[in-house]
Amino acid sequence: MKFDEIINRTGSHSVKWDMMENLYGVPASEGIAMWVADMDFRAPQCVQDAIGKMHEHGIYGYYGDDSSYRAAICWWMQNRHGWTLDPEAIFTTHGLVNGTAMCVDTFTQPGNGVVLMTPVYHAFAKVIRANNRRVVECDLINNDGRYEMDFDAWDAQLDGSEKMMILCSPHNPGGRVWTRAELDGVAAFAKRHDLILVSDEIHHDLVFPGAQHTPMALINGIEDRLIMMTATTKTFNIAGSHSGNVIIPNPELRQKFGARMMGLGLSPNSFGLHMAEAAYSPEGAAWVDDLVTYLDGNRQIFDAGINAIPGLKSMPLEATYLAWVDFAGTGMSREEFTDRVEKGAKIAVNHGPTFGSGGDNFLRFNLATPRTVVEQAVDRMQAAFADLQ
Amino acid sequence: MKFDEIINRTGSHSVKWDMMENLYGVPASEGIAMWVADMDFRAPQCVQDAIGKMHEHGIYGYYGDDSSYRAAICWWMQNRHGWTLDPEAIFTTHGLVNGTAMCVDTFTQPGNGVVLMTPVYHAFAKVIRANNRRVVECDLINNDGRYEMDFDAWDAQLDGSEKMMILCSPHNPGGRVWTRAELDGVAAFAKRHDLILVSDEIHHDLVFPGAQHTPMALINGIEDRLIMMTATTKTFNIAGSHSGNVIIPNPELRQKFGARMMGLGLSPNSFGLHMAEAAYSPEGAAWVDDLVTYLDGNRQIFDAGINAIPGLKSMPLEATYLAWVDFAGTGMSREEFTDRVEKGAKIAVNHGPTFGSGGDNFLRFNLATPRTVVEQAVDRMQAAFADLQ
Ligand SMILES: Cc1ncc(COP(=O)(O)O)c(C=O)c1O
Ligand SMILES: Cc1ncc(COP(=O)(O)O)c(C=O)c1O
Repeated sequence: MKFDEIINRTGSHSVKWDMMENLYGVPASEGIAMWVADMDFRAPQCVQDAIGKMHEHGIYGYYGDDSSYRAAICWWMQNRHGWTLDPEAIFTTHGLVNGTAMCVDTFTQPGNGVVLMTPVYHAFAKVIRANNRRVVECDLINNDGRYEMDFDAWDAQLDGSEKMMILCSPHNPGGRVWTRAELDGVAAFAKRHDLILVSDEIHHDLVFPGAQHTPMALINGIEDRLIMMTATTKTFNIAGSHSGNVIIPNPELRQKFGARMMGLGLSPNSFGLHMAEAAYSPEGAAWVDDLVTYLDGNRQIFDAGINAIPGLKSMPLEATYLAWVDFAGTGMSREEFTDRVEKGAKIAVNHGPTFGSGGDNFLRFNLATPRTVVEQAVDRMQAAFADLQ
Repeated sequence: MKFDEIINRTGSHSVKWDMMENLYGVPASEGIAMWVADMDFRAPQCVQDAIGKMHEHGIYGYYGDDSSYRAAICWWMQNRHGWTLDPEAIFTTHGLVNGTAMCVDTFTQPGNGVVLMTPVYHAFAKVIRANNRRVVECDLINNDGRYEMDFDAWDAQLDGSEKMMILCSPHNPGGRVWTRAELDGVAAFAKRHDLILVSDEIHHDLVFPGAQHTPMALINGIEDRLIMMTATTKTFNIAGSHSGNVIIPNPELRQKFGARMMGLGLSPNSFGLHMAEAAYSPEGAAWVDDLVTYLDGNRQIFDAGINAIPGLKSMPLEATYLAWVDFAGTGMSREEFTDRVEKGAKIAVNHGPTFGSGGDNFLRFNLATPRTVVEQAVDRMQAAFADLQ
């Protein structure tokens, strides 16, 4: 099976493997890197071939005529997500952290509130604060291991200084695929509070059987205030290309965003463009289907192994390869359970508090690695918490 | 000779070749692309190998630990430019248009004046205007085909609303390598008018025998208000990687710039980083030496052929592969000489007026192409202006 191969990433400038000792104190020699969200799998053959073709050509000059790139994006969104989009609505940013930042910079003012549904992907808050905007944490309800929205509480919380909401759909961490009813609720909430809605759908292709992702763009009545964000990078494991798409249906918002792109002199690198065009193809689609099946197997093994440890609870993922494990039931301090994972099991993971309110008792484990590595991680975890059994 | 090979770039998403029909009306089938500044040569073998190695690895995830990348930059600046720099002073932006834009955004306010020595690289003015700052055009003197500075006139022109000056060193277009005395003058001018000085030195490696480039960072007394910009992209023909370095000695300016990088969520793509580290090496240096020799041959052939046409004058380049041809002596209108080049000779070139004041009678020709192509271009030019002979 193509995802079973263990590929040594040490010394390849992989942040995940080469920085884990530095950042988490997990020794590179024996550690398992399960933190930052990239995969230990090769990109699909068609994407590798795009790089191979560039390599063979040997000239890496300025890229021009992106119409086939735009067409590939439209094809993917139509075929995989039932979403018809205007190729002119697409802006290619340097990844979606940059995309998020550009939205905050373009559509809000210093001091404005930006609403997050916490816990959520840590870079959102980082970028909001770095722009001197305020993070407004609207807490998700953890309903027996399933995150749910709480509009009544949030309505009471907002004070009118909020100008934007960033939705993570599917949600990271926790892996919720929001239902159409929930997304209708988000749209109504955004309208009620006059918020621009940024929908980060970077994980939209990594959805497990039984769940059905709905692009926010398909929700009625939100189009005028909606910024969609998608990317090839999570889906095809090409985050190093730092490319992402910010897609804006409303012409006025589009014009403003375009002016900021121009003002900041931003245009995409050719590697990301060549790879994206190759990825958004029938061959890329078949690879994603296989990938999701493989990840589904990984999450089942991981959840079974982790949930067998008394006091540990892994949230059932509907999407993403990012397991979100609740240690509250152990009664241990954050230091203790984190130490057991890092120093005991020697696994580098993301720390819950970086995801904001509600994350304190959690650690996030990246399962996009060969199955034997997941199995080894489970064994190590069971050993590190053996006294609880 | 390695630069003699004609490599077909049509259909490779090369903006230079694939967009010339669209932008300049020069038919792709018979045209010669001599506009935008990239080269029709393969990158050095060590740079191609860096891509080959990435291709072979097949995983293109997040890049981490950039210390060897920073060390390579420091090595190059030390060895090739006699400039010792602090690796912590380096920010990697998405190319130098983005770098320039980040400087304007970070260090000036809407309405502020930004001083350019015109005619100069067109993206400067574009980026300044896109940020609602004012372009202050300080005209270079064309002293018999050599651009010179005119501080007395410029002193009289400034009114105190200017906050920044962007120096292009070596200068594009016209290819001046500024002398130490001229750079001392720039430093004094920047101090006198309390300007932040951005020195774009992207062409610093492409300097012809007889000229000696001095990094602005080596000029006394300017360090506190200096932003240096360098890149691998022009030198090694890897502009598609959209990578550039903004280097800031002053800790206070550095801190401000870093905060903006964070606010905009900018971090570099891995392809540019891998290539840069491979390029800034002894093997890369040897290739650049050969390249400069080859370009020197091209410019001699081009200048001789062009200057043989009555009324045409090609500025003697001290650096860059961008010939700047003055058509004033023909007495023709801009439309006529441009038509003769585009429709007659079927050569796509950059139009002078886009470079600002002083550019009206000029066209810019990119000579970084196999010699036979340069020769063919000269033949076509001589035919297109045959009636003048
Ligand atoms: C929800 C979400 N958005 C954005 C990103 C990062 O995007 P990029 O690498 O394009 O900056 C991640 C990465 O984990 C993510 O989970
Ligand atoms: C002086 C100068 N600066 C910057 C650039 C472009 O830089 P980048 O491709 O890194 O945005 C050019 C390209 O021609 C240039 O001549």
